[in-house]
Amino acid sequence: MIILKLGGSVITRKEAENPTLNHENLERIAREISQSNYQKLIVVHGAGSFGHPFALKYGIGDEIGNNQDLENKMMGFSITQQAVKELNSRVCQCLRKYNILSVSIQPSSFILTKNKRIISANLNLIRKYLDLGFVPVLYGDVVLDSEDAIKMAVLSGDQIVKYLAENLKPKRVILGTDVDGIFNKDPKKYADAQLLDVVSSLDHMENGDTDTADVTGGMGGKLRELLELADIGVESEIINVNHSNIIKKALNGENIMGTLIKKKIRR
Amino acid sequence: MIILKLGGSVITRKEAENPTLNHENLERIAREISQSNYQKLIVVHGAGSFGHPFALKYGIGDEIGNNQDLENKMMGFSITQQAVKELNSRVCQCLRKYNILSVSIQPSSFILTKNKRIISANLNLIRKYLDLGFVPVLYGDVVLDSEDAIKMAVLSGDQIVKYLAENLKPKRVILGTDVDGIFNKDPKKYADAQLLDVVSSLDHMENGDTDTADVTGGMGGKLRELLELADIGVESEIINVNHSNIIKKALNGENIMGTLIKKKIRR
Repeated sequence: MIILKLGGSVITRKEAENPTLNHENLERIAREISQSNYQKLIVVHGAGSFGHPFALKYGIGDEIGNNQDLENKMMGFSITQQAVKELNSRVCQCLRKYNILSVSIQPSSFILTKNKRIISANLNLIRKYLDLGFVPVLYGDVVLDSEDAIKMAVLSGDQIVKYLAENLKPKRVILGTDVDGIFNKDPKKYADAQLLDVVSSLDHMENGDTDTADVTGGMGGKLRELLELADIGVESEIINVNHSNIIKKALNGENIMGTLIKKKIRR
Repeated sequence: MIILKLGGSVITRKEAENPTLNHENLERIAREISQSNYQKLIVVHGAGSFGHPFALKYGIGDEIGNNQDLENKMMGFSITQQAVKELNSRVCQCLRKYNILSVSIQPSSFILTKNKRIISANLNLIRKYLDLGFVPVLYGDVVLDSEDAIKMAVLSGDQIVKYLAENLKPKRVILGTDVDGIFNKDPKKYADAQLLDVVSSLDHMENGDTDTADVTGGMGGKLRELLELADIGVESEIINVNHSNIIKKALNGENIMGTLIKKKIRR
């Protein structure tokens, strides 16, 4: 089994003010998946411009003030849920166009968080979909949170990937992003930033570049999730899906540019 | 708590070859719900022309032949799932337009059937959505079936209503249809057909008019589900939502035209 994450910045125009699909990327990715050899595949995609603007606007996951604020956030929840569902429909549709038997799985229908971390999610159906040969497609969504102060939370695709990986123990986790991998410092700021082939701890990063502005955590948040995964024995690869054929090669297990997140071998 | 079912023939143009919304009905229904007094409300809607044509075309729920047939049905599952999800989005959107805090709940994400009957569905999230003040909106969908011979099934909105009612014990179940209620015989065939105010058993129906062609069961199938509900103490009302203000009155508990399905009092 392989879990393939498609970043919101890859399949949507993340800088757009309104939900905007990145058609070209999505088409190319779907085609590459269809051309690759995989036994069992789960796709998890981010929300990008279909989710983040709404989640930010309504402050989903922020502490709730008075009743008016609660109602406003609930309306925001409803709006965000619909927008990311719309994105998911487009992804499933595009996969199907390339003969991939996509099946949509809505996180807000079966996942509960507490303080923004998943505490309950029955994965039996996902296992059954996989066994039958479907490709379950999950996505960053808004979900109920059992912490009374916030009541609702933004659930990132990355956290879903981690939860699935912890529980389903996939052979590989591939994270398709718009960067070549993890650098020792921000390559947009530092010309001498170096791509790291392997990362086993946050110590590989210079200074504090693990925090970037992103509702669901930027590369720093992603890396932390992946290091925790590595700790329990699930390795993951960060790749730049803007390079053509890289998803196909990654799914086929070929050697590609990117960063492997794996456990440090203790001597 | 009230469970309100909106028939596929009410919110879609059921006779249409392609998925076609009944905008007028949907708008009116949403407005009436927003004008009524309810504490907790669950909406369940049928699939109508968004689901039945696909489910029929691909034979979802029919016995599976060879691998080619399985793959074909799986593709049909994927297509049907997307179409009914699209209808659900339209319903949620319209409810939200009238300030109803709709939240979409996708049956195929958490419900499993065996031989076309629900055997597993965790309702905790639905309870939580209700407690917070959301209006969960479920719908007729395609789902996985644990019976190996069929593997997939069409899950009707009516069966969902019944399962929810059995487990959540609502105060009332209201079934919005395009007929005035249950008649003692088919009113489209017999001019002397009489509307029944109360039905407690299938004996109230003359001849075999309980079977009509409908992928998810016509009035006969509906009535059987409701009689089983009545048996465990949950009464339901069948109303014709084409009459304006009837949903508002029904939600408010006013006296309206329709058929009440209730348990026979044994002496």
